[in-house]
Amino acid sequence: MADLTVFGTGNMGQAIAGLGSRAGRAVELIGHDDTGTTVSGDLVVLAVPYPAVAEIIEQRRDQFGGRIVVDITNPIDFETFDRLVVPPDSSAAAQIAARLPDSRVLKAFNTTFAGTLAAGTVGPLPTTVLVAGDDGDAKANLVDLVTGAGLRAVDAGPLHRARELEAMAFLQIGLASAGAVPWTGGFGVVA
Amino acid sequence: MADLTVFGTGNMGQAIAGLGSRAGRAVELIGHDDTGTTVSGDLVVLAVPYPAVAEIIEQRRDQFGGRIVVDITNPIDFETFDRLVVPPDSSAAAQIAARLPDSRVLKAFNTTFAGTLAAGTVGPLPTTVLVAGDDGDAKANLVDLVTGAGLRAVDAGPLHRARELEAMAFLQIGLASAGAVPWTGGFGVVA
Repeated sequence: MADLTVFGTGNMGQAIAGLGSRAGRAVELIGHDDTGTTVSGDLVVLAVPYPAVAEIIEQRRDQFGGRIVVDITNPIDFETFDRLVVPPDSSAAAQIAARLPDSRVLKAFNTTFAGTLAAGTVGPLPTTVLVAGDDGDAKANLVDLVTGAGLRAVDAGPLHRARELEAMAFLQIGLASAGAVPWTGGFGVVA
Repeated sequence: MADLTVFGTGNMGQAIAGLGSRAGRAVELIGHDDTGTTVSGDLVVLAVPYPAVAEIIEQRRDQFGGRIVVDITNPIDFETFDRLVVPPDSSAAAQIAARLPDSRVLKAFNTTFAGTLAAGTVGPLPTTVLVAGDDGDAKANLVDLVTGAGLRAVDAGPLHRARELEAMAFLQIGLASAGAVPWTGGFGVVA
């Protein structure tokens, strides 16, 4: 039995699984072909690209009931790299929450590059994970994991604030792609 | 004759006028009752709250023709503090640019708290001004002012990226209002 289930074995999935281990949680990492594994963590992180989320939800919706589901995605239009694919008054998190009415959905980790999660720092600053969601206990669970791993966490407000978190991350990814900031840098939080 | 005209004598207007002076520009600061002064700077900064911009444009549109106009506003709904008052697929900068077809409009200074402009630092980081706009020469003019004052400037892309800059600043103001970050801190740029 795991405390934390992470979908996705890419750099973000590995980094978040690493945080869980550092925080003393039992971690389950589920890859793309792992369709037979049943989710056991109370905390589930969907560390896959936004277009891959729909299929996981379709296959696993029953398993996600009652659990905390963390959306880390940035729904960028990779054809134009100039817009998000979700409606402008919505967010990936809102779209995911609408498909998971029996789960407590959080938005987190979308503004922190993988390298900054692994290092624990963004330049001279501690890496800070911004967490949005409507359920206080769910947020406290994730904040405890993040701080237990030695990083900082800040409550960014209700789940609909995911719209601003995704906008900020889109901007940050654009700056990194343009070479204006390194993938080990970007936006830090001075608290 | 001024090089830089700043509308607004609040903390942002004063801080931006201060940057102009430090960068060696001749600065003109226009307050609310200064209706008789004719704009002389090639670079005009509207350092007033978003609701006050419309009246200035109405009164001064002819004077702004051919000039660079910098929008620094964050169009927050101050009744709910939970949304922006501009359409979700637009921005304050886009609204202002639509009213000033003969000006070159930039978005800047909306993600930097006044205290960080005056200090030149956000915690351990140099204060970084994110600048969006569609005219390269206009951006270069403003970047030159910012760097001439000892701060950093980063090109954030075309003017329609103001939507993300305003979302990021809305989030930052919410965090400061909630006490999660100080008004001398917030989001820094690790470049």
